[in-house]
Amino acid sequence: MASKPKLTYLNMRGFAEPIRYLLAYANIEYEDRRINPVDFPQEKLSLPYGQVPVLEINGKMINQSNAITRFVASLCGLTGSDDFEAFQIHAMADTIMDLRNFFGDSFWRPIEQDEEHVQARKEEHLRNDIIPFYLSRFEKTVKENNGYFVNGKLSYADVMFAALELHFSNCLEEDITSSYPVLKELVEKVNTIPRIKEWIDNRPITEF
Amino acid sequence: MASKPKLTYLNMRGFAEPIRYLLAYANIEYEDRRINPVDFPQEKLSLPYGQVPVLEINGKMINQSNAITRFVASLCGLTGSDDFEAFQIHAMADTIMDLRNFFGDSFWRPIEQDEEHVQARKEEHLRNDIIPFYLSRFEKTVKENNGYFVNGKLSYADVMFAALELHFSNCLEEDITSSYPVLKELVEKVNTIPRIKEWIDNRPITEF
Ligand SMILES: N[C@@H](CCC(=O)N[C@@H](CS)C(=O)NCC(=O)O)C(=O)O
Ligand SMILES: N[C@@H](CCC(=O)N[C@@H](CS)C(=O)NCC(=O)O)C(=O)O
Repeated sequence: MASKPKLTYLNMRGFAEPIRYLLAYANIEYEDRRINPVDFPQEKLSLPYGQVPVLEINGKMINQSNAITRFVASLCGLTGSDDFEAFQIHAMADTIMDLRNFFGDSFWRPIEQDEEHVQARKEEHLRNDIIPFYLSRFEKTVKENNGYFVNGKLSYADVMFAALELHFSNCLEEDITSSYPVLKELVEKVNTIPRIKEWIDNRPITEF
Repeated sequence: MASKPKLTYLNMRGFAEPIRYLLAYANIEYEDRRINPVDFPQEKLSLPYGQVPVLEINGKMINQSNAITRFVASLCGLTGSDDFEAFQIHAMADTIMDLRNFFGDSFWRPIEQDEEHVQARKEEHLRNDIIPFYLSRFEKTVKENNGYFVNGKLSYADVMFAALELHFSNCLEEDITSSYPVLKELVEKVNTIPRIKEWIDNRPITEF
């Protein structure tokens, strides 16, 4: 990499944490820039699509959490060994993103502000329907693939899930993997990879 | 490819059309399976995450429109020539997907059924804020990149936008590119690539 990359996000784990996990795993030095919420409206004007995270690298500022995640993963061999394996990993990652977007939609109010009761119903729907639907399928997939999402080996889909798990659990104020032992083990396995563990032990402490 | 792939979706262009464009461009023979809405609830049970599109290939059924799009694009050289170019293309594609998801959220009611007036406000917000926000940025990007989204050459982000344009325009009942000449030209350019034109001329006629 020509220049030291700069990752810009809010002062939370959120959508950026999978990227930070992968940057730690890949042992890439970077600037972990965290915007203060009061500065966000001003900052927004300079963002390519008004949103974070963005990664500045090789003189460009590029948006999209999953694209950034995938790019960093490609630098450390976590995107599969051929196009077909990459396809399965990307599909898994996009499915985890669908779940993540349900959280976004339920807990982080969309721009045009839904009514409170619509919001409350969304949270209930997430808790009672969406979470069990996705997690039971994830549990089965990881079980069938020897403890990883795809083909029995570590990929960025595993890292992504592990990095988002605490966010999901904190939003719902419960341990979302408590009924899913195989997923729990996967999260633990990723979180104890030495360079990732080192990141977790030293990262800024934030609620989300 | 070992087996003839099967693409399953509804009888509409929707999320599957970028994939169909790319399969045509790549000259890959496939089964274009379209589910009848009355059969969807039954079909849903056999889908990995209850949603379409899915692609069956090499004995697996894989979900996620963008992952499928990207996979087919990787088979015909439209994912960039190195990791960094791929990154820029994926970021663009995910941004087009964000826009597409605003349409999904405004016109295809989410599972838990928003109130009518919330829905109406969403459509207004899409029309007055979201569309101009995204399209003015797309217009600028394509202009700066010699008529394509990334690095002055055709990538799957261009194909994706062209394939979704009619869907966007039909949902809003207006030509969404009418104030964006550079985007209009891009759409026209993609739609007249011979194999894509042949697909458009022969595809099933549907409203969306
Ligand atoms: N699809 C985008 C979504 C990014 C996104 O929604 N970012 C939020 C923060 S987590 C944001 O910037 N919100 C501020 C806004 O939309 O004004 C991604 O995955 O990066
Ligand atoms: N993120 C997924 C979303 C797929 C999706 O929302 N599919 C819709 C049709 S366009 C669906 O199957 N809806 C039926 C349902 O959710 O029950 C993708 O891009 O493929």
